[in-house]
Amino acid sequence: MAPVAPRSGDAIFASVERVNAELFTLTYGAIVRQLLTDLEEVEEVNKQLDQMGYNIGIRLIDEFLAKSNVARCVDFKETAEVIAKVGFKMFLGVTASVSNWDADGTCCSIVLEDNPLVDFVELPDTCQGLYYCNVLSGVIRGALEMVSMKTEVTWVRDMLRGDDAFELQVKLLKQVPEEYPYKDDE
Amino acid sequence: MAPVAPRSGDAIFASVERVNAELFTLTYGAIVRQLLTDLEEVEEVNKQLDQMGYNIGIRLIDEFLAKSNVARCVDFKETAEVIAKVGFKMFLGVTASVSNWDADGTCCSIVLEDNPLVDFVELPDTCQGLYYCNVLSGVIRGALEMVSMKTEVTWVRDMLRGDDAFELQVKLLKQVPEEYPYKDDE
Repeated sequence: MAPVAPRSGDAIFASVERVNAELFTLTYGAIVRQLLTDLEEVEEVNKQLDQMGYNIGIRLIDEFLAKSNVARCVDFKETAEVIAKVGFKMFLGVTASVSNWDADGTCCSIVLEDNPLVDFVELPDTCQGLYYCNVLSGVIRGALEMVSMKTEVTWVRDMLRGDDAFELQVKLLKQVPEEYPYKDDE
Repeated sequence: MAPVAPRSGDAIFASVERVNAELFTLTYGAIVRQLLTDLEEVEEVNKQLDQMGYNIGIRLIDEFLAKSNVARCVDFKETAEVIAKVGFKMFLGVTASVSNWDADGTCCSIVLEDNPLVDFVELPDTCQGLYYCNVLSGVIRGALEMVSMKTEVTWVRDMLRGDDAFELQVKLLKQVPEEYPYKDDE
């Protein structure tokens, strides 16, 4: 099959089915509130949000590969760029940028320019320590695991904690190329 | 101020910020799964989903009133039509219809033609009794309560339970017009 050009995040986002962002924001807020009530410990909530994100990510990757026409990335650097430029645009309608690469190209930051999850959100003092957007780190971790990249994803900056941006550090722990489930000629 | 024409659900949906519907669907699925794990009893999950929906509805009504330019509805009949034709379109991008009115115009059905919440969803046998989409009944109940209509919203048909459509019965219990928080001349 002749290769198909990858599509821009904007073009994909314009073509997929969408729902109102405020409904999504409020629904996500309702989850976090629910978890805070059920689990009490903020650390447990962080863990559950990450796990929920992971469960979402391992399925969302299918939609991503099906709709984006992105070819197999040659390395982790390209992968990070694709997540930031295509992935965030395609799913949340926002753009992100990649920076802070380490010397061997296995660790970088993804910085969000906009974050629909936190519209109208203010954390009460009782929620110090909460990573409100932790679902996002789980999504990235889950999605990358399905393309055989084991990663650790952590928040470096969080505007809900008073920082000036949302910044996720993505660290490649292990890559198993031969387990990549999609062959180039499929 | 001169009255502004109400906008169609399509026009509003096209103009608001949106996110990918699959992300929303998977996120909602992750909530339900989480609640099933945490609460164990299906009845409790139904109750929590309804409560989450209520919390969403009491906030979503603001966005609805701000964006839709819908004038104060003259009666419950008009309200139901607006929910089905404008509300569902504006937030979920789907159309719904109103039917099965009782004689005194206080009880009707809202039938969904499409339901993005249930894409890819199949309920295991252990989830008999679950109203998977119960967040929707809560949203309607919460939103209507903010415009002084106390309602009871229940599922009559549910495709995840083998029915041929999603049908919500909306029953007006009490209406307190003088508490309506928005004056016509505002």
